[in-house]
Amino acid sequence: MPIDSQAAINMLKELRSLTADDHGAQRVAWTPMWLKARAWFADKLKGLPVEHHFDAAGNRWVTLKGASDKALVFGSHLDSVPNGGWLDGALGVIAGYAVLRRIAEEYNGKPPVTIRLVDWADEEGARFGRSLFGSSAFAGTHTVEADRMRTDRDGVKLEDAVKECGVSISAIGDAQSERKNAAAYLELHIEQGPVLERMGLPLAAVLGTKGVERHAITFHGQEAHSGSTPMRDRHDALAAAAKLALEIYKIAGRHEDAVCTMGSVKTFPGIVTAVVGRCEVTLDQRDLDAEILAAMYHEAQESSRRFAAEEKCTVEWSRIWNIEPVPFHPELIKLCEDAVRETTGTSHRMPSGPLHDAAEVSRAGIPTVMMFVQSLKGISHNKIEDTAEEHLLLAVTAYDRLASKVMAWIEQG
Amino acid sequence: MPIDSQAAINMLKELRSLTADDHGAQRVAWTPMWLKARAWFADKLKGLPVEHHFDAAGNRWVTLKGASDKALVFGSHLDSVPNGGWLDGALGVIAGYAVLRRIAEEYNGKPPVTIRLVDWADEEGARFGRSLFGSSAFAGTHTVEADRMRTDRDGVKLEDAVKECGVSISAIGDAQSERKNAAAYLELHIEQGPVLERMGLPLAAVLGTKGVERHAITFHGQEAHSGSTPMRDRHDALAAAAKLALEIYKIAGRHEDAVCTMGSVKTFPGIVTAVVGRCEVTLDQRDLDAEILAAMYHEAQESSRRFAAEEKCTVEWSRIWNIEPVPFHPELIKLCEDAVRETTGTSHRMPSGPLHDAAEVSRAGIPTVMMFVQSLKGISHNKIEDTAEEHLLLAVTAYDRLASKVMAWIEQG
Repeated sequence: MPIDSQAAINMLKELRSLTADDHGAQRVAWTPMWLKARAWFADKLKGLPVEHHFDAAGNRWVTLKGASDKALVFGSHLDSVPNGGWLDGALGVIAGYAVLRRIAEEYNGKPPVTIRLVDWADEEGARFGRSLFGSSAFAGTHTVEADRMRTDRDGVKLEDAVKECGVSISAIGDAQSERKNAAAYLELHIEQGPVLERMGLPLAAVLGTKGVERHAITFHGQEAHSGSTPMRDRHDALAAAAKLALEIYKIAGRHEDAVCTMGSVKTFPGIVTAVVGRCEVTLDQRDLDAEILAAMYHEAQESSRRFAAEEKCTVEWSRIWNIEPVPFHPELIKLCEDAVRETTGTSHRMPSGPLHDAAEVSRAGIPTVMMFVQSLKGISHNKIEDTAEEHLLLAVTAYDRLASKVMAWIEQG
Repeated sequence: MPIDSQAAINMLKELRSLTADDHGAQRVAWTPMWLKARAWFADKLKGLPVEHHFDAAGNRWVTLKGASDKALVFGSHLDSVPNGGWLDGALGVIAGYAVLRRIAEEYNGKPPVTIRLVDWADEEGARFGRSLFGSSAFAGTHTVEADRMRTDRDGVKLEDAVKECGVSISAIGDAQSERKNAAAYLELHIEQGPVLERMGLPLAAVLGTKGVERHAITFHGQEAHSGSTPMRDRHDALAAAAKLALEIYKIAGRHEDAVCTMGSVKTFPGIVTAVVGRCEVTLDQRDLDAEILAAMYHEAQESSRRFAAEEKCTVEWSRIWNIEPVPFHPELIKLCEDAVRETTGTSHRMPSGPLHDAAEVSRAGIPTVMMFVQSLKGISHNKIEDTAEEHLLLAVTAYDRLASKVMAWIEQG
């Protein structure tokens, strides 16, 4: 029985018309528009042979009971960033819904393995700066105490906002009980980058999510008068930082798929008539290989010290955040690649730079893989985020094909 | 008759004790503390055979009438920046006072040429952002209409503040009448840079004030996700700006004494997880040679376009401000160098990066030269601004010697 991919695309458009304004999608977690999206989705479950409920972290679980308790789980998130796109998160939930529906019909409501669909709560962390809220509660990696006192821009506490939505922050660890019987986890997502478009490919199997080393780096030089200080007498903190801004291209360039980004530079005093006395920058480094990531971090530190010395400055590093790489399940990656090749005639494997709920699920020890569909211009988190409709149709079809392969893989044990 | 250099240093210390607090000198023009400094100075004129008055722009003129109407003019300013140093400006006024006093005594109140001392009004422009107020009125280069509506941080208009001090903004052009009979202009100032300290020299003859080209430069790239955008797909506005931040060292390095400064860098969106889509920087270029300055400006523009192209970005330039170089009078430079050599045993010539009232006087066609005395650590506009006392003593002595030479030069016509 073929899946109705076009119906899934139509559902996405319906959700967009309900939850976007002129500036883009507004389904920010723990806000009325998010609850509206979730209510709309609950409505779509009527008439299906499924049970559904919210877990202790606000994740919605939809279960189609199978002959085996072993469960194939589809997941993604309905929440968006403010002024977001129509596909980020929503595509995965609705494609999962379409596949679950196809399986329910094909097996007359009783497939060989249990099929579950999860709509994770607050993947984006847009309101409180805490991403992967629901999936990290599920994985048991959520540090409640560290997040309890977070506030939004209006001073509302996370604890109070989630309570409004029926979630008690103290109890979210209970979401771990949903891990029982989960045998595999799949997630379809837009790429959010330019790689597939450049390669002319619609789909790819995802190897895992890259680890991240994120640091604040401060170069200390000597503020000086721009008119009276000869070039040779300067301790120019900006010059040292500029060397690092360029060096990171060499550091990343030694490793395929590695990325390094200097996203912020601040100069002090930051006036036209003064040599920069202090320069604060940020560095974000990512790779799927933990050893490569550690090497890049080391190389950046060494380079920064060398550049500081060359410019008669000093440098200090402060870690903002880091996470280890999360490689996905090798057998599921192979099945995903097969599903992509059988659907499109070509296959490609690539790591994910952005984090996803799938990383938390994988860290919880559940075999996981993701499928990417091409993003136009590599843009997401923006109202112009888009994917060619023909590619969305291929994505839903390939995702359905992957589901069948993974059901068989689970049955085989 | 030798000059009493120590008396001048003691006067400077007396002024400091009257007009500085724990944060430094507070003689900001058009404020009560500035008026207090000027009143203190007027007190010091009592008993001297001089006439003194304020001109239409608030400059104070002290005149010791000589046998000839041709006048040797000493000038500097008593105003300071907020939290300023004890020497910037004040040294020149008080050294001029000491020399005038020595000449008055030596010639029993009737020197061969007229001696004048001017305390320029508002050299720093600290309160209203308009530097060289009084000297530009004297030179006739002051654009009253452009400055009339300037306000300080409290919203007080420049026009009203100067009126409180007896200056009518509409009439300041009348200060040009003071140019009559001015045959030479001398100004002693601290270097405000590190060159003389590095060279181990106390004093130097100043060649002129450097011209300035000051621009805002914006690199436009493409904001992109730091995790999902491969290095080769980036349009990194920061990378282009970083190349220019380093290239300006090569551009300035091709010309002795030339300086180029990138003092401010702003990144947009300026967050750790995004490739920089837009980078705004400032560039300040200075040299004493107009052709070299024009060449450096051209080279920086060319380089910026090349770097923008290399990083798949675009660049636009917008002039903030510029001023042409003001070379001082060759014969007076020679006399200054002689005075420095005869006093200290060595001589040095150097351009001034910072602007000074002397630049306006020179632009008005009056033969001009400045003398610099070493600054400790090159620091000024700060309470720690300082000069070794032995160097201050040498400076007053050499300045007095220069005055004698220039009096003779004027007499010779």
